[in-house]
Amino acid sequence: MNYNFADRYEGITGSAIRNIFALLADPEIISFAGGNPSPDTFPGEELARISSDILTNDSATILQYGGTYGRNSLLEVLSEFFTEKGKKPGAGEVIALSGSSQGIDLMTKAFIQKGDTVLVESPTFLGALQTFKLFEANIVEVEMDENGMRMDDLEAKIKEYNPKFVYTIPTFQNPTGRTMPAERRREMCQICGKNGVLILEDDPYAQLRYSGDPEPTIKSFDEYDVVVRLFSFSKIISPGIRVGGAYGNKDIIFKFNLGKQGQDVHTANMNQEMAARYVREGLLFPHIADTADYYRGKLAAMYEAAVKYLPEGTKIVKPEGGMFIWAELPEKLNATELFKEGVENKVAYVPGTHFYAGGGHHNTLRLNFTMVSEEKIEKGMKILGEMFKKHL
Amino acid sequence: MNYNFADRYEGITGSAIRNIFALLADPEIISFAGGNPSPDTFPGEELARISSDILTNDSATILQYGGTYGRNSLLEVLSEFFTEKGKKPGAGEVIALSGSSQGIDLMTKAFIQKGDTVLVESPTFLGALQTFKLFEANIVEVEMDENGMRMDDLEAKIKEYNPKFVYTIPTFQNPTGRTMPAERRREMCQICGKNGVLILEDDPYAQLRYSGDPEPTIKSFDEYDVVVRLFSFSKIISPGIRVGGAYGNKDIIFKFNLGKQGQDVHTANMNQEMAARYVREGLLFPHIADTADYYRGKLAAMYEAAVKYLPEGTKIVKPEGGMFIWAELPEKLNATELFKEGVENKVAYVPGTHFYAGGGHHNTLRLNFTMVSEEKIEKGMKILGEMFKKHL
Repeated sequence: MNYNFADRYEGITGSAIRNIFALLADPEIISFAGGNPSPDTFPGEELARISSDILTNDSATILQYGGTYGRNSLLEVLSEFFTEKGKKPGAGEVIALSGSSQGIDLMTKAFIQKGDTVLVESPTFLGALQTFKLFEANIVEVEMDENGMRMDDLEAKIKEYNPKFVYTIPTFQNPTGRTMPAERRREMCQICGKNGVLILEDDPYAQLRYSGDPEPTIKSFDEYDVVVRLFSFSKIISPGIRVGGAYGNKDIIFKFNLGKQGQDVHTANMNQEMAARYVREGLLFPHIADTADYYRGKLAAMYEAAVKYLPEGTKIVKPEGGMFIWAELPEKLNATELFKEGVENKVAYVPGTHFYAGGGHHNTLRLNFTMVSEEKIEKGMKILGEMFKKHL
Repeated sequence: MNYNFADRYEGITGSAIRNIFALLADPEIISFAGGNPSPDTFPGEELARISSDILTNDSATILQYGGTYGRNSLLEVLSEFFTEKGKKPGAGEVIALSGSSQGIDLMTKAFIQKGDTVLVESPTFLGALQTFKLFEANIVEVEMDENGMRMDDLEAKIKEYNPKFVYTIPTFQNPTGRTMPAERRREMCQICGKNGVLILEDDPYAQLRYSGDPEPTIKSFDEYDVVVRLFSFSKIISPGIRVGGAYGNKDIIFKFNLGKQGQDVHTANMNQEMAARYVREGLLFPHIADTADYYRGKLAAMYEAAVKYLPEGTKIVKPEGGMFIWAELPEKLNATELFKEGVENKVAYVPGTHFYAGGGHHNTLRLNFTMVSEEKIEKGMKILGEMFKKHL
């Protein structure tokens, strides 16, 4: 039978990255293509104890239906994470999510009708682009520099496109690793607030800082009440438990609640409680410190190898945290075409073009270092560097 | 700030039932208003052991990102549940869900554009109505009789409205408790198949059978490949773990996969694995039998009390399972208005009007018996009966 699918699925074929993953079954390949945290950082033992304890002592409520906003235990923990400069979220301003990706979906559902404009960083997170496409949004790219989204271009694009909201990953951005400084965050709130444009602040990498000082969140400058901030446990506890949260004006969060009711009713109680208990037992902050220690050397190794081996003229910004290094090769090189040759040489990366709403930028690539040993980072980058140089 | 929300939220105020729940904080109230399984049936001890075991032995994959379709262990279990008359689902025809409600959302997302028609039973599940409204569907009711959706009216409504799909709960329907016999299920497939109309078969109560023989699923008659069948663990293991599944043509399930990617990426791995292991260890079927034993007496008590106490002229159909009894009082009585008086008398139910897409039907009510002791069922029904008789 030929099914008459809704128009929103036109041109949606699934994540290009997922298709790349399918190619990487060969265990001999050194893969810089991933975006996963290292399983070496997963607190399996503690979570085993906590899950058993929760189900042994509280199964009557844990195994029952829960409220859509989430369990109080997790909402309190999320509220603490969202508290900044002494300002705590008010009643109804926080909701638990099944991963922060769900927040991108619920924000889009709350505001976007067919043809409405969403502004995104150029480049940005693939999953967000797919979500915006499924709501038939008009996706417009805002230029970046080494400090994240450029405010002059943001202002120009707001004037030109009258967008509903701006989607940003301000800290250790995916895919570029770039971080927006405090002053630019403040400026962004001013520009958007004055123009009645909302901001979706997706910040899953912020806690993965290996050096330097944390930046204040965009939400902390939110005098116009235009920012919805997302929080994720995926990179600091586990992505597999699918727990995150959102913080914003209560009218917006109520729409998130209604939208979520019809999707998964609520985030599984045990998963919420596991995250809450892990934090309440004082385990999270030492664990984040250990995780930073684990990744710090890998980032340094990746950056040093990139500087050492990638061709002259390559632009690389060293991030102070996160999971990625971004490289802009000399214009002449096509990282999209060379991906295949890389895999033949047993090294994989993600061609940067996939992260651009409008495609192009074939001289760019994303390099992930979380899953690879320092030794293999050196080895893999050497192979990549030699391959790229050969084609110059 | 005044937010410019998308039109899809117009008139969406949240589940009327949830608002009723908020009134029921008083522990002295005998509540027939719920829709929850009894926590007495939750297998907390076994799940505590299983969760701990999973996280102890397999944290590297359990705590990592997973595939959107779901874990093989759960997909195999779901495929067995979906196997009927020797026909097993093929590759790509099954997907794991975060509760079967997510399947209603993904089906609607796959097919419904603004103004497209969905046919529903009159009355039907509130959560489904809210989901259809959020996709701006034209919701059209199909008349029921004591054997579920009437096929003559289904055929008439298909001719009149050219719907994209029909939503049905064929077994122990929510809210009516009615079950569609095999012959009608076959007829439904024929009518829909010949007209190119899809069927969403939502069947979360089918395993809660306390007497009589199981009916074949609608999907088992699906020679035209028009049926998407949902499966839920909510009423037979736990709703709090949020695990279910869907089975349909692989082109449709691929759209489910794409739609789910942008929502929660995947259902939490531990939750999938817990359900799969609970089944694989042979615990589910004895547990379902125990659960049926637990509810059987409550259903009988509720039915007998309804017959004994509700006013003459009330129509009640005794279901062979599920969680609800449905009563149609004499036309003169208004169960919507009398709800408040019921609560004052310390007894609550859900006015039937909420389950009708078009409202009305104020002489109907839904009575849930899963959470109340037989003694309190007798007591509460006596109070309700006297109240209704007083107003005749």
